[in-house]
Amino acid sequence: MTQPLLFKTVCIIGIGLIGGSLAYAIKRAGIAERIIGCSNDPDENLRALELGMVDSVEIDPAIAVTGADLVVIAVPLGTFATVFRSIAPQLSGKTLITDVGSAKGSVITQVRQHLSEHLSRFVPGHPIAGTERNGVDAGFAELYDNHRVLLTPIEETSVNALEKISALWEACGATVEVLDVNNHDQVLAATSHLPHMLAYSLVDCLLTMEDSRDVFRYAAGGFEDFTRIASSSPQMWNDIVFANKPAVLEALDAFVRHLQRLREAIDVEDTEAVLSCFDRSKSARDRFVSRRQEQLDNEHGEC
Amino acid sequence: MTQPLLFKTVCIIGIGLIGGSLAYAIKRAGIAERIIGCSNDPDENLRALELGMVDSVEIDPAIAVTGADLVVIAVPLGTFATVFRSIAPQLSGKTLITDVGSAKGSVITQVRQHLSEHLSRFVPGHPIAGTERNGVDAGFAELYDNHRVLLTPIEETSVNALEKISALWEACGATVEVLDVNNHDQVLAATSHLPHMLAYSLVDCLLTMEDSRDVFRYAAGGFEDFTRIASSSPQMWNDIVFANKPAVLEALDAFVRHLQRLREAIDVEDTEAVLSCFDRSKSARDRFVSRRQEQLDNEHGEC
Repeated sequence: MTQPLLFKTVCIIGIGLIGGSLAYAIKRAGIAERIIGCSNDPDENLRALELGMVDSVEIDPAIAVTGADLVVIAVPLGTFATVFRSIAPQLSGKTLITDVGSAKGSVITQVRQHLSEHLSRFVPGHPIAGTERNGVDAGFAELYDNHRVLLTPIEETSVNALEKISALWEACGATVEVLDVNNHDQVLAATSHLPHMLAYSLVDCLLTMEDSRDVFRYAAGGFEDFTRIASSSPQMWNDIVFANKPAVLEALDAFVRHLQRLREAIDVEDTEAVLSCFDRSKSARDRFVSRRQEQLDNEHGEC
Repeated sequence: MTQPLLFKTVCIIGIGLIGGSLAYAIKRAGIAERIIGCSNDPDENLRALELGMVDSVEIDPAIAVTGADLVVIAVPLGTFATVFRSIAPQLSGKTLITDVGSAKGSVITQVRQHLSEHLSRFVPGHPIAGTERNGVDAGFAELYDNHRVLLTPIEETSVNALEKISALWEACGATVEVLDVNNHDQVLAATSHLPHMLAYSLVDCLLTMEDSRDVFRYAAGGFEDFTRIASSSPQMWNDIVFANKPAVLEALDAFVRHLQRLREAIDVEDTEAVLSCFDRSKSARDRFVSRRQEQLDNEHGEC
């Protein structure tokens, strides 16, 4: 699976599930000479070295980026501004910069503010992959295989930068798509951020019920699947909802309106409305799953 | 796995996922001499015979129950009244009757109305098991292994009837618990019926969005898990929400109030409130999953 060298030194700031998996995938692909990992937690840095995830580690982002030809920001969204401020003076005029944040509009605003000298070499990115686990031990090389990575280049992003970041992700097993930033933030609010709010809110709501022990005692497999995403990192999701606040609120409001219509249909026993909602939803969900399966099959077929 | 004979002739009315799996599990346990399957669809009956799921089939419930010492009602909840009316005149004074409906209060009301001569031999039941698949081909013998079956006996239910239905489910691999009917309906509304409403409503809401093709295109694994239950049978879930309407509406309203509080916290950027909601939820969900795992491990250990 070794491919042509794309980078000499890659610096990954944030080595949890997303950053760590990227490090493993880059090593698997053999597209970088050297990977520097950077966490603000010395234990995480030690562990990353122990795991062989990276070749060296550094606690200070400003030092970590020195001499790197690619910097990947993979910290929680709430920490982006601090990292940008810290690395800005040390970035060379040749270093490519990308990130993996789940919301893109707010990242771009921060980049314009803190990395205004580096806009042509900045490629906003978002791998649509993850698990509910996190931390330095959660990463694995296959995380991005057959997953989409969405890139939302800004006006200033150079063609060369976009091409190199695309090549990076493709070498790591992913399929790259370029998307408008507002479209990205709205679509992700609806398909990812909103479901996380619903799952967190559902579990929290059940906790407030009388006999909440019974409530969880009799919950079954459907509940386990439905709430899997409620086991995701609270801090990470706190950061995401605030980073994508307008789109998240819009999606939440649209959903509540929709749910209230279903509630009314149940209340007045409008079977036709209830049944047609369930029917449309089942058809769409079945189509979604079979297209996803087809896509996976096709991609495996091409290997 | 063969156990003492519990019944001579078991009649299962409705041979989809739940009824069909029960037939397989009864055969696996060897606790009945003969199983009669009853569907109103001749093709389903033929298929059930072909699959070896049952020993004989009958299209008319009134004929199917004649001579059976156990009748299991496993049709969608909306069909219960019709089945009760049809079998009432044919039931012997010795036949035990149970059902597998996901809502119990409304079933009991119908039983009191249509099977008033048989109340001491009626045991309302609800296996907490299922998949999003349905139909005669969806059944399998292991569906109930290590799953809970909730029984909600009425005042008139005899001890003997309760014991025999408990023994039936235990022989089929399940753990039986006896529950108050209102408690059952409220708990299930919260942990099962509400999540189904949310999943159906979410997918349906996304369909109304501009570029809904994009919306589904960029949805990922979290979305797939979250919406798995939206692939369940629309007719079955239509019947369930109407059969458990008061508890479903109550759970929906409690959830919307809860979600609106989260929405307000996001809107006013009350990070503490958002984070503590996510934290509580993650802890509860993690506990739920580890207890479920422990329970599975213990039960396997006992085999």
